Amino acid sequence: MRKLSILGVTGSIGTQTLDVIRKSNGELGLIGITANTSVEKVIEIIEEFKPLYVAMMDLKSAYEIKNYCKKQNKAIEVLEGIEGLNKIASLDEIDIVLTSVVGMIGLGPTMKAIKAKKDIALANKETLVVAGEIVMKAAKENNIKILPVDSEHSAIFQALRGNDINTLRKVILTASGGPFRGKIIDELKEIKVEDALKHPKWNMGRKISIDSATLMNKGLEVIEAHWLFNCDYDNIQVVVHPQSIIHSMVEYTDGSIIAQLGAQDMKLPIQYALNYEKRGNLIADTIDFYEISKLTFEKPDSDTFKALNLSFKAGKIGGLMPTILNGANEAAVELFLDKKIKFLEISDIIEKCMELFKAEVKNELTLENIIDLDKRVKEYVVETSVL
Amino acid sequence: MRKLSILGVTGSIGTQTLDVIRKSNGELGLIGITANTSVEKVIEIIEEFKPLYVAMMDLKSAYEIKNYCKKQNKAIEVLEGIEGLNKIASLDEIDIVLTSVVGMIGLGPTMKAIKAKKDIALANKETLVVAGEIVMKAAKENNIKILPVDSEHSAIFQALRGNDINTLRKVILTASGGPFRGKIIDELKEIKVEDALKHPKWNMGRKISIDSATLMNKGLEVIEAHWLFNCDYDNIQVVVHPQSIIHSMVEYTDGSIIAQLGAQDMKLPIQYALNYEKRGNLIADTIDFYEISKLTFEKPDSDTFKALNLSFKAGKIGGLMPTILNGANEAAVELFLDKKIKFLEISDIIEKCMELFKAEVKNELTLENIIDLDKRVKEYVVETSVL
Repeated sequence: MRKLSILGVTGSIGTQTLDVIRKSNGELGLIGITANTSVEKVIEIIEEFKPLYVAMMDLKSAYEIKNYCKKQNKAIEVLEGIEGLNKIASLDEIDIVLTSVVGMIGLGPTMKAIKAKKDIALANKETLVVAGEIVMKAAKENNIKILPVDSEHSAIFQALRGNDINTLRKVILTASGGPFRGKIIDELKEIKVEDALKHPKWNMGRKISIDSATLMNKGLEVIEAHWLFNCDYDNIQVVVHPQSIIHSMVEYTDGSIIAQLGAQDMKLPIQYALNYEKRGNLIADTIDFYEISKLTFEKPDSDTFKALNLSFKAGKIGGLMPTILNGANEAAVELFLDKKIKFLEISDIIEKCMELFKAEVKNELTLENIIDLDKRVKEYVVETSVL
Repeated sequence: MRKLSILGVTGSIGTQTLDVIRKSNGELGLIGITANTSVEKVIEIIEEFKPLYVAMMDLKSAYEIKNYCKKQNKAIEVLEGIEGLNKIASLDEIDIVLTSVVGMIGLGPTMKAIKAKKDIALANKETLVVAGEIVMKAAKENNIKILPVDSEHSAIFQALRGNDINTLRKVILTASGGPFRGKIIDELKEIKVEDALKHPKWNMGRKISIDSATLMNKGLEVIEAHWLFNCDYDNIQVVVHPQSIIHSMVEYTDGSIIAQLGAQDMKLPIQYALNYEKRGNLIADTIDFYEISKLTFEKPDSDTFKALNLSFKAGKIGGLMPTILNGANEAAVELFLDKKIKFLEISDIIEKCMELFKAEVKNELTLENIIDLDKRVKEYVVETSVL
């Protein structure tokens, strides 16, 4: 049995991971879980999966879970706050940590897990975007695997299977194109939050839905791919593929391309990461090519959707620039969701921050500097945009 | 340097293999070659590649080559006939044999090569269609690799790379659909040889072009896939994909699909087989997804193109039935090319032979019985059809 902790167990990825565990015929065991405030959901998970450790970011929620466990006579260690997260990520009993918390908060626990020599099933984008260099170096030093849970990176990871990474010529990252594919700038000026939340293919959280509409989501994935697969930015191509059947591809030195295809179901990449190197049982719908009829491809419109090129630019500059990109985007998306700014302003703000904070890029790439700069960029965005 | 013999060096695959050797930067060395009667071409190859052994099936041609080598003072051993082929296939000096001779004649030398513990780069369809059981067993016993050179089987082989063969759930064999895709029976009644030879995607020999028009080519590939990948016939699906960009796919137990894509260039699978497990340098055009725009898929019309279902049937019956299927097809295609029978009669003849000779299927599957039955089926087809 492979034993795991899930950071962010009540979110979309966390919930689907529980389903993967249910269907694993006892091959996966849940030892530790973390959540923010969802006390009821956590109690349900405790009852069904009987984890040994629970951490709640919110102190009051941790208190409620402690009380519950006491009353029910459960031998569960209940922890709280970021220290709780760090402990759950590095338990002696576990083999692997699935990190699906959203945002910068995932970075610290991921580093703790790596240093405790746990494999990482990574569903937290920020970790690699802002600290890819640090994380991959630590992974190598501690001889652990970073197993991607994103459908695109899982596809690349699967397409690379059995091949020498030195024969990788190009990563072809597919993109659905988001809900506004084909629209021109003028049509995007008065986009409403509700429109941007309607993704054509995937049902996701609010932040990632907006990122998908701006193509920033794909931009962040480009930076992740750079770090995960040690691939130059010039060798990463983004191809819009609206049917989202091909989840991404790899081109090899000989010109041969290997692609991974599958249903639009996150349980597939989750299971692949948690079972690696074994392939698990059928966990998603299969694809019937007699039904599909066609797959289409097009170039992304990076004039209209500026976030994609900004991501390439930030990635190539490297250092702390992706922290600026990511921090500005996070803050701007929140303002857009709160109806404080317009849709097109999101990428304008990112561009502006990359210019304004560029002197900071030379500073040493440390976790402390990342966290500090991220905070200052976000504060700047909120202060200047709300005025 | 990996040293090889090429059986059938002057044919389409042989010629392209020479190009792969040229571009291998000395990593591939040509030791032995065989041909039928193409003396001039063989002399050119001798001058450029300096092989140590040459065999000509035709005795007069062998004599001419011997004379040439004597006059030019070349220390080349020149052999003749099937014994020459057998020797070239099993030379002490070589590591791998590329068998691209057409027809049943390839079977004997392939078995000799296997018994001499040479890896096989297999471009001769008949070998696996009629004797898959014998060949795969011998390959296992002699601990050698059968490396497919067909673009479809190379695609499957690449898609399986790094994966446990026991996690293979389904083989998805793509087919261009041939020149008559979409046509109904009535439109096929008066098909001319010239029309059938015009393949929309691949430039191939005459026999394989007709097989492609009847879908028998795909049928033979189904039987090959069964033996190469130890896959039940019920788990092999043929999908028509007219763009021929996806060369085939594999579905795994978890529902994930891995596909291989690439240019329509046989040098890719040839190089992959000869360099295995290394990937070679760029040998074909690359695919630009910004240019492709779409890939389409459809169900093959197996009511109109009966040869496909006949192949599945013959494969499932097993034993000597694929020998009957293949022999009847070879003879019928020759009659069609000679304008002795009509296009639709090809599959009618195959069907009839499978019924007429079915009592033979129970006989032991030996090379002798295969060769004998193949001969009798072909004689029967010629005799009854010419009358």
